[in-house]
Amino acid sequence: MSKSDRKLHLNLFMNSMGHHEAAWRHPQSDVNLAADFGHFQRLAQKAEQAKLDSLFFADRLATTLTAAKYGAAGGLEPLTLLAALTVVTKRIGLIATVSTSFNEPFNIARRFASLDHLSGGRAGWNIITSGTDGEARNFNYEHIPEHGNRYERANEFVDVAIKLWDSWEEDALIRDKQTGIYADNSKVHELNHKGTFFSVKGPLNVTRSPQGRPILVQAGSSENGKEFAAQYAEAIFTAQQTFEDARTFYADLKSKLIRYGRSPEHVKILPGICPIIGQTEAEAKDKEAELNELTNPEYSLLQLSNRIGYDLSSYPLDGPLPELPDVEQINGHQSRTQLIRDLAQREQLTIRQLLLRLAGGRGHYTIAGTPMQIADQLEEWFVGGAADGFNIMPQLMNGGLDDFLDYVVPELQRRGLFRTEYNGRTLRDHYGLPYPLNSFRQESKQHEVNRIV
Amino acid sequence: MSKSDRKLHLNLFMNSMGHHEAAWRHPQSDVNLAADFGHFQRLAQKAEQAKLDSLFFADRLATTLTAAKYGAAGGLEPLTLLAALTVVTKRIGLIATVSTSFNEPFNIARRFASLDHLSGGRAGWNIITSGTDGEARNFNYEHIPEHGNRYERANEFVDVAIKLWDSWEEDALIRDKQTGIYADNSKVHELNHKGTFFSVKGPLNVTRSPQGRPILVQAGSSENGKEFAAQYAEAIFTAQQTFEDARTFYADLKSKLIRYGRSPEHVKILPGICPIIGQTEAEAKDKEAELNELTNPEYSLLQLSNRIGYDLSSYPLDGPLPELPDVEQINGHQSRTQLIRDLAQREQLTIRQLLLRLAGGRGHYTIAGTPMQIADQLEEWFVGGAADGFNIMPQLMNGGLDDFLDYVVPELQRRGLFRTEYNGRTLRDHYGLPYPLNSFRQESKQHEVNRIV
Repeated sequence: MSKSDRKLHLNLFMNSMGHHEAAWRHPQSDVNLAADFGHFQRLAQKAEQAKLDSLFFADRLATTLTAAKYGAAGGLEPLTLLAALTVVTKRIGLIATVSTSFNEPFNIARRFASLDHLSGGRAGWNIITSGTDGEARNFNYEHIPEHGNRYERANEFVDVAIKLWDSWEEDALIRDKQTGIYADNSKVHELNHKGTFFSVKGPLNVTRSPQGRPILVQAGSSENGKEFAAQYAEAIFTAQQTFEDARTFYADLKSKLIRYGRSPEHVKILPGICPIIGQTEAEAKDKEAELNELTNPEYSLLQLSNRIGYDLSSYPLDGPLPELPDVEQINGHQSRTQLIRDLAQREQLTIRQLLLRLAGGRGHYTIAGTPMQIADQLEEWFVGGAADGFNIMPQLMNGGLDDFLDYVVPELQRRGLFRTEYNGRTLRDHYGLPYPLNSFRQESKQHEVNRIV
Repeated sequence: MSKSDRKLHLNLFMNSMGHHEAAWRHPQSDVNLAADFGHFQRLAQKAEQAKLDSLFFADRLATTLTAAKYGAAGGLEPLTLLAALTVVTKRIGLIATVSTSFNEPFNIARRFASLDHLSGGRAGWNIITSGTDGEARNFNYEHIPEHGNRYERANEFVDVAIKLWDSWEEDALIRDKQTGIYADNSKVHELNHKGTFFSVKGPLNVTRSPQGRPILVQAGSSENGKEFAAQYAEAIFTAQQTFEDARTFYADLKSKLIRYGRSPEHVKILPGICPIIGQTEAEAKDKEAELNELTNPEYSLLQLSNRIGYDLSSYPLDGPLPELPDVEQINGHQSRTQLIRDLAQREQLTIRQLLLRLAGGRGHYTIAGTPMQIADQLEEWFVGGAADGFNIMPQLMNGGLDDFLDYVVPELQRRGLFRTEYNGRTLRDHYGLPYPLNSFRQESKQHEVNRIV
């Protein structure tokens, strides 16, 4: 594809009320719809009308009494909700977050294969390892397993899942009523996997799905996370505060791919963007201030402490962020902690100021401006080698999402940077990702050898 | 409710092509639809038009190369499919089978709460412990855990799930935008459960769902299974070959309820019925023979061996069933093995004859006859104290299901035995089951004390 044909990709990071910490308190939010299917249907259909590549739900396997008190806690389980959304959408990709630390690969491979069948090839899996003790305590642990150990398990988990998805070859199904032969079982495979974390015999009990397997997405930007992404991910969600940081991350990740014999084009890097849109820049800034005024510093501080794994409750809000332990010592979300520390230092923020900077996107890049200004920034990042597209995090789902789809997307289309129509039917088509080779097929094995040589 | 107002309940046991082992080979079956959502949508909507209480999917966490060769292997994961079916149905209940042996309670409680939200209170959980080594080998075991051990785990699993569903009280949500208080967190509860199999802190990260919790269904009829059912189940699926056996099972189970302080009306017993319907009895028998001719004895024998956990491949097809080990020695599906052995002995069947008797419903009761004859039998069982309703297992989904819904259901309605309209909106409403008390509420604790005293 020529340079000028290159299009950016847009993923909608969906949740019930919006990404701003105080979204549910905003007058435009209808908080009674937090678990209402019709609400999610409307958002998904609106994103599909705008021709977005995909929509996505994050996931966390715990909540707390404090989160319940102050926040929009208690949503629906993502894969269950996405299965329902397959029925009311036709083209947009559907990406669910699932943790490798508190699940079994057979169950998860099966659910994603089922979602891929139901959606006609629109499933994606955002692979996470989970990073908090609160989650571990819902799954028989006192503390979250160590960072490196979690990624070791994630590697084996994904290896097993891929073999399960490959266990039915494309042409295994015969379904000959006369002979009574349903499948050519020389094309159905046991794995007989015996590893460190898992023993799985196989085959999967779901036939091969339209995309072969869901697209694999990854969101951790720690050293372990980047290595994992270079090996498996086909799309990457990442939090980057500056163009320079984003460009460095982009170049670093793409260069790592070579080591695994992968083409840079087969991994799409999508930094998170929190747009706040006004007809004028002043209107956008007012909207941002209006949301920030609805935050509760007590709750924000608890969230930040939880995010960086360090209790900040005894530090004055108007003082600086204290010295934090080395990132390598942190067992939770390493890369986000680093980003937050860098941000506070670079901009000399008090804790109170830092909380407001994080309220909109928890460390993702916030842009308040006109549709033109926002399109300018997205274009700069996309053309300048910092992004293949963006993970859009509206501050409000009612209103904020509409502003982005109604004003920024058409501007990107006018500039020739974004599609005006879907060209394919599957999520792989939208992202320009290849259909995966089946590791059980002879010609794939041959290809594998060629690739390595 | 007066005796004459008592209505029977009908659950559709759904699968892709029908319950007869050779269903997929029948000319009426469209085997390309085995993983097609539109096909399941049509079946579910048809069942809902007929005002059935619920539909249900069984589940098994493994398949084999032989099953792939001969059978309709490789379906969709039940909870995922049911989530999609919530969107295209409005009233019918949706029951998914999930194993307690190869899942974590936090994940499963969450998925059922989400399904209950999405469906507006129509979720049910058929609780199984799984019974085969093939399944164990997809989950890090060499052999299936011992029968008693599996039920011990199931007990604790369900206890934890119930506490998770109760962890948000009915009136916990406040959502006051002015004060910023989302929930009254004195009404959101940690479990801090530490047991033999699970440590789960809680609370659940899904708010309380319309039914409070899914209705709990159970299908094992072993001694362990019956004890478990008496304690937890609100509906019971069971395989019974004769009216006398069904009546004995019914009386036994209802009497056990008293020990747990439960009302006999709060557990609905639903024997499985495989109807084969003709305009005349002869036509029905012809239909049965036509299906039986499509079976493959080699495959049937493998299935039977797997079902009873005993390899029959070296025994002559035209000889009798050999002596089998004591049922208590069997670690798999105890009650079904007992039923099959009794059937062969009572009717003096050769192995070949036994295979044909099992082809239609794997041990469930098959009736080939006119709509009037089938309605007569259902009425006899219902009125005679052998059933509260039935688990309907059509031999063919295309055709056979339609015959039952178009001819037998209207006959049951004419007799005043079955509803002609839904009276309520939730699955609990359809089955006449009470809304569950929340174990964390003070008045519930008081009620609990009264009940025990």
